[in-house]
Amino acid sequence: MDPEAFLEMANQVTKLKMYPYFDIAHCTLCCLYVREDLGTGSLPFSRKHPLANWLSSMLTIFAGGLLTNFLLGEPLLGALKNNQQLLLATAVWYVIFYSPFDVGYKIAKFLPIKVLLAAMKEVYRVKKINDGVTHAAKVFPNGYLSMVLIGTIKGNGSGFLKILERLMRGVWTPAAVEVMQPTFPTKASIAAALIFVLDKKTDIISAPHSLVYFGICIFFVYFKLSSLLLGIHDPFVPFENLFCAIFLGGIWDSLAQTLSGKRGAAADKGGDAVKNVLGSPKTSGTSGIQK
Amino acid sequence: MDPEAFLEMANQVTKLKMYPYFDIAHCTLCCLYVREDLGTGSLPFSRKHPLANWLSSMLTIFAGGLLTNFLLGEPLLGALKNNQQLLLATAVWYVIFYSPFDVGYKIAKFLPIKVLLAAMKEVYRVKKINDGVTHAAKVFPNGYLSMVLIGTIKGNGSGFLKILERLMRGVWTPAAVEVMQPTFPTKASIAAALIFVLDKKTDIISAPHSLVYFGICIFFVYFKLSSLLLGIHDPFVPFENLFCAIFLGGIWDSLAQTLSGKRGAAADKGGDAVKNVLGSPKTSGTSGIQK
Amino acid sequence: MDPEAFLEMANQVTKLKMYPYFDIAHCTLCCLYVREDLGTGSLPFSRKHPLANWLSSMLTIFAGGLLTNFLLGEPLLGALKNNQQLLLATAVWYVIFYSPFDVGYKIAKFLPIKVLLAAMKEVYRVKKINDGVTHAAKVFPNGYLSMVLIGTIKGNGSGFLKILERLMRGVWTPAAVEVMQPTFPTKASIAAALIFVLDKKTDIISAPHSLVYFGICIFFVYFKLSSLLLGIHDPFVPFENLFCAIFLGGIWDSLAQTLSGKRGAAADKGGDAVKNVLGSPKTSGTSGIQK
Repeated sequence: MDPEAFLEMANQVTKLKMYPYFDIAHCTLCCLYVREDLGTGSLPFSRKHPLANWLSSMLTIFAGGLLTNFLLGEPLLGALKNNQQLLLATAVWYVIFYSPFDVGYKIAKFLPIKVLLAAMKEVYRVKKINDGVTHAAKVFPNGYLSMVLIGTIKGNGSGFLKILERLMRGVWTPAAVEVMQPTFPTKASIAAALIFVLDKKTDIISAPHSLVYFGICIFFVYFKLSSLLLGIHDPFVPFENLFCAIFLGGIWDSLAQTLSGKRGAAADKGGDAVKNVLGSPKTSGTSGIQK
Repeated sequence: MDPEAFLEMANQVTKLKMYPYFDIAHCTLCCLYVREDLGTGSLPFSRKHPLANWLSSMLTIFAGGLLTNFLLGEPLLGALKNNQQLLLATAVWYVIFYSPFDVGYKIAKFLPIKVLLAAMKEVYRVKKINDGVTHAAKVFPNGYLSMVLIGTIKGNGSGFLKILERLMRGVWTPAAVEVMQPTFPTKASIAAALIFVLDKKTDIISAPHSLVYFGICIFFVYFKLSSLLLGIHDPFVPFENLFCAIFLGGIWDSLAQTLSGKRGAAADKGGDAVKNVLGSPKTSGTSGIQK
Repeated sequence: MDPEAFLEMANQVTKLKMYPYFDIAHCTLCCLYVREDLGTGSLPFSRKHPLANWLSSMLTIFAGGLLTNFLLGEPLLGALKNNQQLLLATAVWYVIFYSPFDVGYKIAKFLPIKVLLAAMKEVYRVKKINDGVTHAAKVFPNGYLSMVLIGTIKGNGSGFLKILERLMRGVWTPAAVEVMQPTFPTKASIAAALIFVLDKKTDIISAPHSLVYFGICIFFVYFKLSSLLLGIHDPFVPFENLFCAIFLGGIWDSLAQTLSGKRGAAADKGGDAVKNVLGSPKTSGTSGIQK
């Protein structure tokens, strides 16, 4: 492929208009998520508690904006001030939950359509991460952590608001906080936000911004499709395990265990045996501290 | 009654000074609510945890202002910056909880006085809804949803802060979120906020603002007194049922159930049977998703 | 001691530079607290959930700033914008949780070092209370309650954020809200904030500001060392009991109980007997309302 045409294409991806098609994809997947989170009781719930249902759907759809505004001290309702987006979100919510004979839901769940929507949502996500990093860089020119945080939250806000959104429906799941078991979208958003910050604030990345942006888009869409079609879930796990082994005590713990079995035994007595810290520091499900 | 005199009266209601009498009515009813929410353990609790008691009372009294400031990105403590109001609220709290021989509480619970206080609180509520809509319209000139939201929250803030206020007392009731089972004050506040927004932003309502305001005041006071004296609780229920039947799936669900019994059976298996979706979409207590 | 030299010393204490040594003391004690709060499962938890661990440590370390910014409507992330402080906090967190053979933790737990760190943290605390009161006075020149609140929160922010910080680790303890059973640092911070407000806003305290500041420093360090070395925990209890007896119903309750045994019996039936309201209004553990 001709490099200039490629750059041209990357430029066009950077300038893609999000409204309304990408917005529709985002809203549809968010409403599908809420409906699936409600489980088998989703339809009766939507009939009995339409207000809670609508509010929790809106919280999921506008999660990134709401959380970002909260952290940056801007009016929370600013995230909802665009009436067009709000109407669109409400329309999508209505179609997913209340369309006659559940047609809307069934169409959105149809695999080819779901794959298309998922791919579009990933492109939207990259745009939101980029916008988040840019916005945070304006508010805190040297706040590198803030940039990464805001980028990540813009990218996967609904993950971080999940427990609040469930609370709107009267369900409280404190053990489901995102930071305990970060999902793949969160990790990928962190990585993308880091790359955008490096690109913006340092000279390490020499490629033009639109190429970086395009590359991240491809990465997100590729892994989303892999996850949907092939069942590959988290390409970060091996890197994490390596990082944990080297920096977060893995090797030292094994060494300490080898030198004297004492501490390991004590940890076992604590009710939470870590048989193989080096090999799988993150794959085991939940910690003993959860209730 | 002479229309001009009526308009004059409406004008005077619009300009009523709230401080201190209406403030006292509001604070008294809020403290009574906190005390009743504590149940039989209210007196021992107030002796053992005066700080938590005071804080949760203040949260209830200033709920509207706190939540509004939070949503509009203004300093939360701005709601508490009026020292006179704060002293008044503290004095009322003291009288309700700590007066010798519980005299203050008994007087406030005396029916004629309680009715008078309730009527005054409703007038205060209408003023707060109006102020909320006006304030939100200044911050977001086109944010219709924000105006309705802020108006509603100003009108029934304590309902929305209830779970937080209870948390201050160490009690966590996630199933008691207001949006799951909106109470009458919330629904009435939504309706009033909608009317104020229509009045302010469109030409649909041709009556002068003070008449609209006065009419809403009468509506609120009338239904509060009906509820206190006659036990009529929620005049919105028939309209809601009609709305749910037409727009939120009621009719379509019945049709689908008639055509094939499958989906209904599936929903029943989900542990949450909705026998009569059309007739009573909102009267059943809690959804199966709650724990 | 020569009074001029004493005043000179007080002046120097007022101008003490906090970064980096006092910051290190603060961060170390916060991380130690998080680690102890995790109990016996702390090491396995830190290996499995490094992100949640880091986030909850940062929440504890920057609690005062975050909560203050939240209450004053300033950007929350402003508390994290100082990259140097953030790096320092992260370094301390790393040393406490992940140093080889747990050396960092063991050194920090070594009594003489812990005592030194605790004393430094108390000096830091007084500075933060003073800064908080000054800052709140700028935002709300007449908001006396706001000044005391912000001062208190700056002084013991981690206490107020405890339930949120635990939530980051997937643990939800609604009964552990600080206002239910305020700890000694909270009470002392309230007292110090009150004195700073009196000093700033009235003429009641005629001593120079640096002397007041120095006196409060000595008070904090003295009681912290007493608590660490001698096990004296709360010098406020007798004053509280007196205050509760006189103002919060203690005497009147006894009088009412003497006159007629009815109300006391009713309270007993409520499952939460208060045998001796006058003598110990605050020493009994938890209220009957908690679950």
